[in-house]
Amino acid sequence: MPKFLQVVSVQEAVQTITSIARPVSTETIPLEEAGGRVLAEDVTADLDIPGFTRSVMDGYAVIAAETSGAGEALPTILRCTGRVLMGEGTTAPIRRGECVYVPTGGMIPPGADAMVMIEYTEELGDQVLVQKPVAPGENLILQGEDFKAGEQVLPGGTRLSPQDVGALAAVGRTRVEVYRRPLIGIISTGNEVVPVGTTPSGSQVRDVNSYLCRTVAESCGCRTRSYGIVRDEEEALAEVLNRAAVETDGVLISGGSSKDARDHGATVIARAGSVLVHGVALAPGKPTIIGKAGAVPVIGLPGHPASAYVVLMVLGIHLFGGLTGGGPRPSRVETAVLNVNIPSTRGREDYIRVSLDRDDGKKTVATPLFGKSGLLNTLVRSDGLIRIPAGAEGMEAGTPVEVLLW
Amino acid sequence: MPKFLQVVSVQEAVQTITSIARPVSTETIPLEEAGGRVLAEDVTADLDIPGFTRSVMDGYAVIAAETSGAGEALPTILRCTGRVLMGEGTTAPIRRGECVYVPTGGMIPPGADAMVMIEYTEELGDQVLVQKPVAPGENLILQGEDFKAGEQVLPGGTRLSPQDVGALAAVGRTRVEVYRRPLIGIISTGNEVVPVGTTPSGSQVRDVNSYLCRTVAESCGCRTRSYGIVRDEEEALAEVLNRAAVETDGVLISGGSSKDARDHGATVIARAGSVLVHGVALAPGKPTIIGKAGAVPVIGLPGHPASAYVVLMVLGIHLFGGLTGGGPRPSRVETAVLNVNIPSTRGREDYIRVSLDRDDGKKTVATPLFGKSGLLNTLVRSDGLIRIPAGAEGMEAGTPVEVLLW
Repeated sequence: MPKFLQVVSVQEAVQTITSIARPVSTETIPLEEAGGRVLAEDVTADLDIPGFTRSVMDGYAVIAAETSGAGEALPTILRCTGRVLMGEGTTAPIRRGECVYVPTGGMIPPGADAMVMIEYTEELGDQVLVQKPVAPGENLILQGEDFKAGEQVLPGGTRLSPQDVGALAAVGRTRVEVYRRPLIGIISTGNEVVPVGTTPSGSQVRDVNSYLCRTVAESCGCRTRSYGIVRDEEEALAEVLNRAAVETDGVLISGGSSKDARDHGATVIARAGSVLVHGVALAPGKPTIIGKAGAVPVIGLPGHPASAYVVLMVLGIHLFGGLTGGGPRPSRVETAVLNVNIPSTRGREDYIRVSLDRDDGKKTVATPLFGKSGLLNTLVRSDGLIRIPAGAEGMEAGTPVEVLLW
Repeated sequence: MPKFLQVVSVQEAVQTITSIARPVSTETIPLEEAGGRVLAEDVTADLDIPGFTRSVMDGYAVIAAETSGAGEALPTILRCTGRVLMGEGTTAPIRRGECVYVPTGGMIPPGADAMVMIEYTEELGDQVLVQKPVAPGENLILQGEDFKAGEQVLPGGTRLSPQDVGALAAVGRTRVEVYRRPLIGIISTGNEVVPVGTTPSGSQVRDVNSYLCRTVAESCGCRTRSYGIVRDEEEALAEVLNRAAVETDGVLISGGSSKDARDHGATVIARAGSVLVHGVALAPGKPTIIGKAGAVPVIGLPGHPASAYVVLMVLGIHLFGGLTGGGPRPSRVETAVLNVNIPSTRGREDYIRVSLDRDDGKKTVATPLFGKSGLLNTLVRSDGLIRIPAGAEGMEAGTPVEVLLW
């Protein structure tokens, strides 16, 4: 028999999901496509980056010691022996009494140890008057200062930001090994649920949940496959779940909302593998199921779209994050001040939708939208969620709260 | 002649970009693919959602007035005349003294005006003992309570979140009109720049910027096309820019870092259309160019990758946001306390990379990474940027700061 509503904490539910959602296999892809993917190898620098000591400004490469005491009244006078061209090497060393023009990013000639910005110089024929002293190393990036050859640039498990992709480009990686984008199977259940293209009759409702599941999973770096709408019949659901467990890396079942339908979900997951959690101390979202079908993690979501969405945001992101190898997608959080008291039941985490009133220069105000959990309109019109911890009996007006932005 | 370094404020630069980056044309796509896209039409509800008054829990539909005063000691006794099945209609009205079993999400029969939760009832044969009073409307979602037929669900210009996609599903939209994903042309310039697959020799450096541009633009909902690496020659750059202006919706030129190269960029943009801004009071990022090639907006970025990246994050997001129709991508922001003094020059916005030290339960501490602006490693190892406003002469240790997270 599946465990029924032996409610666990949100933290335990997250731990359970994390323990069963392991990264899928890896693939090697062009760097152009690597943004947002999760690195599956440690990457080291192939060469010193930069490969030469370069200037960070337009000006003259000098021996710093020679500029000591230089000023407008008494400039250091150096002979300019040449100009460095971008992208070309320079081998002639500079000697005492000499300088060389180097543009921003150009190579510093051997012998020089600093750059004087062009604004602090005056050119007179082949002579350059230096009007400001520079210290050794000033205005330079040294060879290998960014990355030394062999130094680790990024560790495996990094979700690749644009600057990470830039660093991989700098060390010459045209292809990188990343975790495959996991495939999430999505099953809608419920005798009342009809396809979105249908005009519902009687007490039918359109299949909102499969679109929510799909969009959240994809925004977390997964691919998705829809298994359509299954009637609340144990054998029908078992057949589809077994198929999805073979074809995908993780499964979401968005439950029919009645108790009978919820029971079918747990029974079928138990038959296909095991039910690890049935019931989470979370509102909305209590009837959530966590389990495995074979080796594949499965989450059973509540039937109400707005409840299902909270479960996706609180628990689902750990499924997607575990399978992608990069951990849960970072959340956008904003601090605001609550404007009314919110009651809550000790022992469960309550997630309350709020709308934010942002007033430039003043504190942002969070107004709870006490909607029925089945309503989509408060979900669409809210800015995010606040969490009332399991240990609290509500929150008082004036409390600063962290809003988990949509 | 192009304007040269008549520096404008960041705010003026953003206004200029916003004024020239208009949404591209629209297309109609399947709802499955609409997550993250920008809606190009106002969407209204086709029907009342829900289409019938439904229960939010398992229990009995009753006439609320009949439960007045009900309690465990003196329950209201009703006769159960049937059970509503999920997805099916119900037409038999309930009358005084009657109730009907309705599962969560099921249709309320005519005549009933509230639901009693099953936990507050006891069933004795065909009699139901109601042990708690309910108010009219309690535990119901009314027909049309989510959206009334004809009511606006989402306005055009909405960047579609998962819950927005869910709302579109609820109102039966299998296809939606969205703005086309703009195509951004990316041109790298610089005689020193070589393709990433090349081992640089002499003072060559690999083409990091085109990867940065590509990854940021794509993360903001654009597509990209690379125009390769162009030498610092006016005619060569002019030819490529003209081609990109015909083929794309917006162009990024990542400039050679020398002054000569910067001048070529401005000259070529002026020839192809106009230079609107040359120089922004922004550090790093001062030599940024904003202009048009024909009708197509162009941003000329500094050559140093880390500077180019700041310009992409501060200004580029407005180009991408304007072209996509959805405005700049929302940023992730975190409040932290600065741990050292930061000097700054009044009259320009300084963006300083910081790393964050998050200590559970304590305030997050921001440590500036005073790297040279050409270094990628501090970019990769930092958590985000803090902005020092143009009016400030630095910031003192202990100041709360908003960190723009990568």
